[in-house]
Amino acid sequence: MKDMRKRSLELHEKHIGKIEVKSKVSVKNSDDLSLAYSPGVAEPCLEIKKDINNIYKYTSKGNMVAIVSDGSAVLGLGNIGPYAGLPVMEGKAILFKEFANVDAFPIMLDTQDPDEIIDIVKNISPTFGGINLEDINAPKCVYIERRLKKELNIPVFHDDQHGTAIVTLAALINACTLTKRKLEDLHIVISGTGAAGSSIAKLLHEIGIKNIYGYNKQGVILDSKYNEYSFLEQELLDNEIFLSPNNLKEDSLKELIKDKNVFIGVSAKNIVTKDMIKSMSKDPFIFAMANPDPEITYEDAVAGGAYIIGTGRSDYPNQINNVLAFPGLFRGALDARATMITESMKLASSKAIASIIAKEELKTTYIIPSPFDKRVVERVSKAVYDEAIRLKGNKSV
Amino acid sequence: MKDMRKRSLELHEKHIGKIEVKSKVSVKNSDDLSLAYSPGVAEPCLEIKKDINNIYKYTSKGNMVAIVSDGSAVLGLGNIGPYAGLPVMEGKAILFKEFANVDAFPIMLDTQDPDEIIDIVKNISPTFGGINLEDINAPKCVYIERRLKKELNIPVFHDDQHGTAIVTLAALINACTLTKRKLEDLHIVISGTGAAGSSIAKLLHEIGIKNIYGYNKQGVILDSKYNEYSFLEQELLDNEIFLSPNNLKEDSLKELIKDKNVFIGVSAKNIVTKDMIKSMSKDPFIFAMANPDPEITYEDAVAGGAYIIGTGRSDYPNQINNVLAFPGLFRGALDARATMITESMKLASSKAIASIIAKEELKTTYIIPSPFDKRVVERVSKAVYDEAIRLKGNKSV
Repeated sequence: MKDMRKRSLELHEKHIGKIEVKSKVSVKNSDDLSLAYSPGVAEPCLEIKKDINNIYKYTSKGNMVAIVSDGSAVLGLGNIGPYAGLPVMEGKAILFKEFANVDAFPIMLDTQDPDEIIDIVKNISPTFGGINLEDINAPKCVYIERRLKKELNIPVFHDDQHGTAIVTLAALINACTLTKRKLEDLHIVISGTGAAGSSIAKLLHEIGIKNIYGYNKQGVILDSKYNEYSFLEQELLDNEIFLSPNNLKEDSLKELIKDKNVFIGVSAKNIVTKDMIKSMSKDPFIFAMANPDPEITYEDAVAGGAYIIGTGRSDYPNQINNVLAFPGLFRGALDARATMITESMKLASSKAIASIIAKEELKTTYIIPSPFDKRVVERVSKAVYDEAIRLKGNKSV
Repeated sequence: MKDMRKRSLELHEKHIGKIEVKSKVSVKNSDDLSLAYSPGVAEPCLEIKKDINNIYKYTSKGNMVAIVSDGSAVLGLGNIGPYAGLPVMEGKAILFKEFANVDAFPIMLDTQDPDEIIDIVKNISPTFGGINLEDINAPKCVYIERRLKKELNIPVFHDDQHGTAIVTLAALINACTLTKRKLEDLHIVISGTGAAGSSIAKLLHEIGIKNIYGYNKQGVILDSKYNEYSFLEQELLDNEIFLSPNNLKEDSLKELIKDKNVFIGVSAKNIVTKDMIKSMSKDPFIFAMANPDPEITYEDAVAGGAYIIGTGRSDYPNQINNVLAFPGLFRGALDARATMITESMKLASSKAIASIIAKEELKTTYIIPSPFDKRVVERVSKAVYDEAIRLKGNKSV
């Protein structure tokens, strides 16, 4: 780890950052200049002035995603602000490019006010074919995403919410296939009800899972505590996405997790013990994804009897890694010129990721493909593209 | 010209825009991923959190310029808006990269309100090492640039104002060398008092030219009409940059231009005649730069007796082309980590451009070097860098 820190600093310093903006056309002589710039460039301008859709024909907009962050919730580092957050967003940009040939550019915002953020993103949107919100704290991030989805006609996606949800569902699908369980028979505890937790709950509900319980710093999510919650937990209760277990003796994770068969953690380190895993029903799935320190260590989860373990780390099996989802998802959405990312596109992404591993290849330590498996982006982008085109045919998008 | 239009559209359509965002580092395996992204990327984040200056060490900020436009005054096309203006700003971005290895990214703003533009640019500034304002109409552009220069600690430069001014001055310097005139002996009429015209007047004054007269759609710029002007013309009168010729019989360009030895046009087509040139003092310099149709055609200027002619077009000699200035200027300013572009850096740029052509090489048709002359960026960037470092030593920047 120490070595990695040093090597990462060296890498960043050597290249002085990770992104560059390159020309796709030649500018070697005055003829080149006349075509790519003045006076020739007036022509594509006039064509776009005539029909705004021509912007997708003559500019880079259709393949350009803004990675927007205010630095308020960066990795596990917290609110480090827009300057310190820039290396992460540059990193995200190169993942977009390297995995899916999507051009992406970091926009770091020197304000953390949600309405200001919404105004700025709308006002800078002409350059972009899509908006990827990143590392913005909850519940603000959900409010920002919803308003932008409504008010912009390009895809808007908050990866911390939905990227994790898509890959978690893909992992659950394969875990069920491997163990011959049905998704609807899962009884799931989600620890963490912020950006990721709330989106995971909604996506699992969307695919038909009925028994989902929520837990956060305030304890178990219960109807009786409704007014203590942010609008996120309130909505999840209102829509019966989180069930409220009213027969609890105490309002603790220990009590809640008993007899359930899935734990999904996107919360805080060391809140789950071996004994708590033992109290679950037989052979549970444990996805302890808090990063870098999970809710329970891999070793303790094994010792407690976890049957399938998912993690947030690349040094253990079954890493629930967002990079499996967002590159292909945007590739498909941009190619179809979708105007938004729908729940159905997210479900299609989960299924596409799960489909990479054939039934007979599945193992408890291999329910999630490698992000370097070229088939991932191919299948996710095709699934999202097909769904977007289907919805366009239905005029619902 | 018809052929160029068709070829420009084909070029833009073939590449679907002109820019892409590329990775400077390899992302081929999970070790790469751990260094460039999670978890290694936390290290540069923490270093920047400790000392914000480290952002220049570990990110692309120090080489990244935002090309900001609201599309309100694009080329000769007028207020075509932020969507139709995008091809021009992509073109500008590739000129930055190809001429000076500066990474530049187009930010098209879906608002034309000056205070909103200022707020947005400030709020998105963390990603950028410099701001190039572009194709924003006057006098708004001057207000925006001044406020941003004051309120940001990175270089802010409005190319339509100062790029043209820098290259015009370079041309005048060489025209004087060739004709053995002194700059201070020039009697100059500037037609057009918007972004370019006002900046040209200021830069010529800065280098010591005293006899400058202004003309625009309202007629000759006269003290007696003070209250009809925007703050731009008012300032130029207040600071005696524009002299007010009070002995005019009529308030016309024809009357004003008589007996002067330089005409600089950044205004409108066909407002200067052969006879007007004949009325000037002997062997005048005529820089008729309105684009694509100049104040007087090259042929008519020759027929009227113009001795040296500058144009805004690549198909005639002595093109006063901004691309001679902005790439090297930003290269030098970024390398020196200057916090602003000063008048002295602009003067240094003009002199550097002029210096490319040795005295004995100068001809009436060769007072301006080619933008493809590699020495241009080298000399301009060095001159600006040296001036920035000198000012830093003096603590004036």
